[in-house]
Amino acid sequence: MRFELTRKYLDTLKSAIEQQDSKAAAELTQDLHPADIAEIFDELNVDEAQYVYLQLNKAFTADILIELEEDVRERFLKQLSGKEIASTMDSMNSDDAADIIGELSEDRQEEVLSHITDIEQAGDIVDLLSYDENSAGGLMATELISVNENLSVSTCLDEIRKQAEQVDEVFFVYVIDDNETLKGTLPLKKLLLSAGKTLVKNICDSAVIAVKTDTRSEEVANIMEKYDLVALPVVDSIGRLKGRITIDDVVDVIREEAEKDYQMISGISGDVEASDTIFQITKARIPWLLIGLFGGVLAARVIGIFEPELGIYPEMAFFIPMITAMGGNVGIQSSSIVVQSLANNTLGLETTFRKLIKELSIALVNGIVLSSLAFAYNYFTSNSYALTLSVSTALLTVVVFASLFGTFVPLALNRFKIDPALATGPFITTSNDVIGLFIYFWIGNIFFTYFS
Amino acid sequence: MRFELTRKYLDTLKSAIEQQDSKAAAELTQDLHPADIAEIFDELNVDEAQYVYLQLNKAFTADILIELEEDVRERFLKQLSGKEIASTMDSMNSDDAADIIGELSEDRQEEVLSHITDIEQAGDIVDLLSYDENSAGGLMATELISVNENLSVSTCLDEIRKQAEQVDEVFFVYVIDDNETLKGTLPLKKLLLSAGKTLVKNICDSAVIAVKTDTRSEEVANIMEKYDLVALPVVDSIGRLKGRITIDDVVDVIREEAEKDYQMISGISGDVEASDTIFQITKARIPWLLIGLFGGVLAARVIGIFEPELGIYPEMAFFIPMITAMGGNVGIQSSSIVVQSLANNTLGLETTFRKLIKELSIALVNGIVLSSLAFAYNYFTSNSYALTLSVSTALLTVVVFASLFGTFVPLALNRFKIDPALATGPFITTSNDVIGLFIYFWIGNIFFTYFS
Repeated sequence: MRFELTRKYLDTLKSAIEQQDSKAAAELTQDLHPADIAEIFDELNVDEAQYVYLQLNKAFTADILIELEEDVRERFLKQLSGKEIASTMDSMNSDDAADIIGELSEDRQEEVLSHITDIEQAGDIVDLLSYDENSAGGLMATELISVNENLSVSTCLDEIRKQAEQVDEVFFVYVIDDNETLKGTLPLKKLLLSAGKTLVKNICDSAVIAVKTDTRSEEVANIMEKYDLVALPVVDSIGRLKGRITIDDVVDVIREEAEKDYQMISGISGDVEASDTIFQITKARIPWLLIGLFGGVLAARVIGIFEPELGIYPEMAFFIPMITAMGGNVGIQSSSIVVQSLANNTLGLETTFRKLIKELSIALVNGIVLSSLAFAYNYFTSNSYALTLSVSTALLTVVVFASLFGTFVPLALNRFKIDPALATGPFITTSNDVIGLFIYFWIGNIFFTYFS
Repeated sequence: MRFELTRKYLDTLKSAIEQQDSKAAAELTQDLHPADIAEIFDELNVDEAQYVYLQLNKAFTADILIELEEDVRERFLKQLSGKEIASTMDSMNSDDAADIIGELSEDRQEEVLSHITDIEQAGDIVDLLSYDENSAGGLMATELISVNENLSVSTCLDEIRKQAEQVDEVFFVYVIDDNETLKGTLPLKKLLLSAGKTLVKNICDSAVIAVKTDTRSEEVANIMEKYDLVALPVVDSIGRLKGRITIDDVVDVIREEAEKDYQMISGISGDVEASDTIFQITKARIPWLLIGLFGGVLAARVIGIFEPELGIYPEMAFFIPMITAMGGNVGIQSSSIVVQSLANNTLGLETTFRKLIKELSIALVNGIVLSSLAFAYNYFTSNSYALTLSVSTALLTVVVFASLFGTFVPLALNRFKIDPALATGPFITTSNDVIGLFIYFWIGNIFFTYFS
């Protein structure tokens, strides 16, 4: 029932394109969903994609442009003239059109806008472009159905029929007053169940949740998720209805948010996929590795301070990986819980101080278990009492320090409006490595001096 | 316009509850959305929550039960009798009711089911409970609107009005034949725009995307996201319409999926939040720390093999953190890209062999840059040529090894139907630490022997 992209299908299509067999190419693609065609374009080069694109009809091509990956679309749009791009904009929703135009250079934007024949659509696009793309204004579409609160249900139905031609999915009918202020919603169900003479204002549900145009995307996503909404109206600062955000756009926001945090914790900058080029992937990965390298140099310096001791007690070196690994693990565990709770708005109402006290308790429990185990291991395998004590004491100290550091840093970043996910990246790990090693060798130095 | 939970609000509510002031408690909660009340319950103890719960009306309490966090709900339901739980089930959608009943013990399930007065609802719940909760059957609700293809638009509208009373959000009208086989959908818009005598089968959109009851949740989420669907019909193995999945349930699946992968990479098992208890958080964190501790012991063993050399060349210890950190970073970078591409279905059509070749190229580029920098650093700061060569050679080798290992392991896990995200956790890091150290000391041993 659904299309699955296979190597075999792709080979057949590519050979049809190579032989300029437009009939075969059209047959292979004609019944597919735009999202499937976009998936195929991911695997074609620009010329092949353009060949397929030109076989398809206009209404369809708009949907394909929307579905393309941003980098594929960028390469693809370069091949089209401003007029060709503009011709697809008429059948697009204003938010999608604005997203695509927003990706073009300013010169190109003006060129495309000047070719759009539907003046109202062009105006909407220009309006939408003025909003920050990470705000409700940047997410919303202007296509929606709104009716005046003073209409009757039967007049209202005619009005809806008229407006519905412009709107893909209806979801809600919004009710406004004479000043275009949002008064509520009219669920379709209620409309279908009411008598024709009923006034809209009497069946309108006024407990409507709306956001302002400048509400941040993350908050929009949290609101729609929390209240299980499929569409959310957007109003300006004086409450006038400006547009609506649909759940499919918010699903993208949720996915992107999660991916951003995931990339941060895995030390990758930017949105890369396994199918991207070697250059793209390297570019996303090397900055974090350079931070790691720098951390390694710092760690080498710290150990270097204790070189004389290390020459006498080389066993001290054995547990360097344990100390750095545990500091790193504990730090990431602590910071990731904070980052995720901030993202989901589930941080609760505890103060930072109480959070740190709680984290301290957790760290003490974990730290005591781990350092007891390390103690037992060294007690039975090493004949240096100084080493046994140093490793366990340092382990406990490092676990406690890394926990508090891992909890505090994302909370502090968040307070200063910096993305707290930064704290899950190499910065925390590197700092924990360096500070943990210093603690370890410092403690070791004391014990070894004392016991010898 | 929206409610925000503050410490002050909570204190007022708690003191109203303490003073058994039911009027004040009701006033504070009466205009709130069920999702807001659920958020408040998160911060109350069970008795306080129950006090508030008993002030609210029945239709409303069902929505609150649905919105509660799973652990809060579990504690809360323990306080209610089977009959009290059953009384909320009538006004719930079948999928929500099945989710909640599915969380109870078997004895309790039977007790609750026996008290549900709406026999049809009870039957639907029992049917839904038979599906795997991670499948389309486990996600779907049985409430939907379906019409026979042979009806006219006007009869169909009457039918829809009748059925709409049972369904929260209409979204689509599904068209079925006499055998209940799904034939297509009837978008509301088309229905509003068609003449009354038109037959449903003539305006029905037959290009409907549907899934089977046993389709996995992740695939359901990918399909709804790819095709921007707000509702997706579910059919049985012979194509009969069984239910529909709405986008709000899928948003939860997407969020949970992302959280699961995030927890795996940050070394936390299970779904914990910053507001959970110390015991819950410790339980989720300590297993991974024990793996890390075990890795530390193994690493100590590996370094122990080279103890004699370390006594002579203690500088070798300086770069242990650099080697382990770079191996860990590169391994996680590689595995996380694969894991994310698998989750998003964006792995592309390359074979595993080609993926490894590509990863090898990326690793060589990164490795050469990093080891050249390390070489330059040591060349200018160390007077041991053997050390300089050992560190750089080992770094390149470790980066290449960790990349290939990080790419291969998740692909292999996925082939054997094991969650590939396992490869981003402590297993990879620990293995990379141990193997990386072995490579480093082995290479170091050769260079130091050769140069002295």
